Amino acid sequence: MKSYQHTVQYYETDKMQFTHHSNYIRFMEEARADFMNQAGFGYEKMEENGIVSPVVSLSCDYKKTTSFPDVITIQIRVLQLSAARLKLGYVMTVSDETVCLAESTHCFLNEKGRPVSLKKHFPAFYSFLESRMTAEDQKSM
Amino acid sequence: MKSYQHTVQYYETDKMQFTHHSNYIRFMEEARADFMNQAGFGYEKMEENGIVSPVVSLSCDYKKTTSFPDVITIQIRVLQLSAARLKLGYVMTVSDETVCLAESTHCFLNEKGRPVSLKKHFPAFYSFLESRMTAEDQKSM
Amino acid sequence: MKSYQHTVQYYETDKMQFTHHSNYIRFMEEARADFMNQAGFGYEKMEENGIVSPVVSLSCDYKKTTSFPDVITIQIRVLQLSAARLKLGYVMTVSDETVCLAESTHCFLNEKGRPVSLKKHFPAFYSFLESRMTAEDQKSM
Amino acid sequence: MKSYQHTVQYYETDKMQFTHHSNYIRFMEEARADFMNQAGFGYEKMEENGIVSPVVSLSCDYKKTTSFPDVITIQIRVLQLSAARLKLGYVMTVSDETVCLAESTHCFLNEKGRPVSLKKHFPAFYSFLESRMTAEDQKSM
Repeated sequence: MKSYQHTVQYYETDKMQFTHHSNYIRFMEEARADFMNQAGFGYEKMEENGIVSPVVSLSCDYKKTTSFPDVITIQIRVLQLSAARLKLGYVMTVSDETVCLAESTHCFLNEKGRPVSLKKHFPAFYSFLESRMTAEDQKSM
Repeated sequence: MKSYQHTVQYYETDKMQFTHHSNYIRFMEEARADFMNQAGFGYEKMEENGIVSPVVSLSCDYKKTTSFPDVITIQIRVLQLSAARLKLGYVMTVSDETVCLAESTHCFLNEKGRPVSLKKHFPAFYSFLESRMTAEDQKSM
Repeated sequence: MKSYQHTVQYYETDKMQFTHHSNYIRFMEEARADFMNQAGFGYEKMEENGIVSPVVSLSCDYKKTTSFPDVITIQIRVLQLSAARLKLGYVMTVSDETVCLAESTHCFLNEKGRPVSLKKHFPAFYSFLESRMTAEDQKSM
Repeated sequence: MKSYQHTVQYYETDKMQFTHHSNYIRFMEEARADFMNQAGFGYEKMEENGIVSPVVSLSCDYKKTTSFPDVITIQIRVLQLSAARLKLGYVMTVSDETVCLAESTHCFLNEKGRPVSLKKHFPAFYSFLESRMTAEDQKSM
């Protein structure tokens, strides 16, 4: 699976001269959309299947500043997976230096906003995520 | 009608130290929502009436830079009004100095995205807008 | 100390109909700026003193969706304080219902980007933060 | 010169389901940065030469809605050029359909914020822009 690349834009910087910290949350979403797309389970396919996957919680650890026009490479790992929840990890680097480490946790809801079992309602996507999870990260949530 | 006030936020600045120019487009929307709300025709009421009013075009003339934590005062005028279109003018000032002049043009659509006559479908709002238009601005579109 | 209030804007929503999760990170910054301002230590005063206070890490726990035009009330607490670090907690509510819980950790840097002791370089602000910290949260970092 | 492509992100949509209109202003900046970069005059080189080029005014004509994950292709043309000002035109298309037409006008300032003649201070960039201007658009400003 190919890493995602985000080129920092001028409008993403702030008066401290660096990328504003809130934007990394958006880069996570970009990388996630790309990850799912590459896997054949883009947001569109999720919506077709009547499943949305909102962010339940996230954390972000800023290691090094970036700025316009840095190219941030983002790698995603599946950290935890259960029928109801998915936790992803993000490693963001610029020229092989880590600039940000982050995690996001997602639930799965149907069109009425009710929790659904991903395993049951969308087994192909569940299997894909399972296969991406490395053995050492396989913990119950 | 009370002017709208927006306090520039740190995340709205860029590495040139000033408010990024794209944000003024958002301040226009904030001021517009406040204007309609004060008039008793908030977005919610519009949606209740099944009318949306997307931006068709806009222009923005940047006169003076602003930055965090400037307070921008925004005054709205109805420049042009017809059954199908509304043109609003915005004067943005900081401490009585003009920082930005802008205009936005809106159409009126029903829930299916079809153009509707505001005059016919929402006469109270049309009358309000008409009453706000100064004589010298009363031009056909 | 007065709570901060943020009115969700239309441009802060996304196609899921709710406030996009990245914006809460910005609301945290708004509330933080207001908190420091109320305390008499606004960003401007910090900059005068040659101190910047970037976000080192943050976490966000989304409890309930919000949307335009909800008014989010944000309360800030000082969770942890040392010479080198500050951890703030945020409770965000809409009509007394918790919508988001968050934390941010900050370091203190001088104009050259070197860490400084807040206690030594800006004792008045340090004392203020100390006084805001409730006894039960007083832990070393 | 290659067109710029922007993939609309989820966080760029709003509750009307479409790309929020303010984001097109940001796409213009992205395309502009790419255009200048391809020409060998990226922002970095401009800054090296002590020249900034803020937006003086802009206009935007929204022709068709877009949404996540549309790919918007942006072509830039030099519409007008003088020693003091530059006007660029933007044609944004999705699958060959025009979605937005826009213009931005820029001035040239030195590090102290004083207007400079681009022709005199950065002749290589001036010549490049001149060569990009089609004969029919060659008007004095």
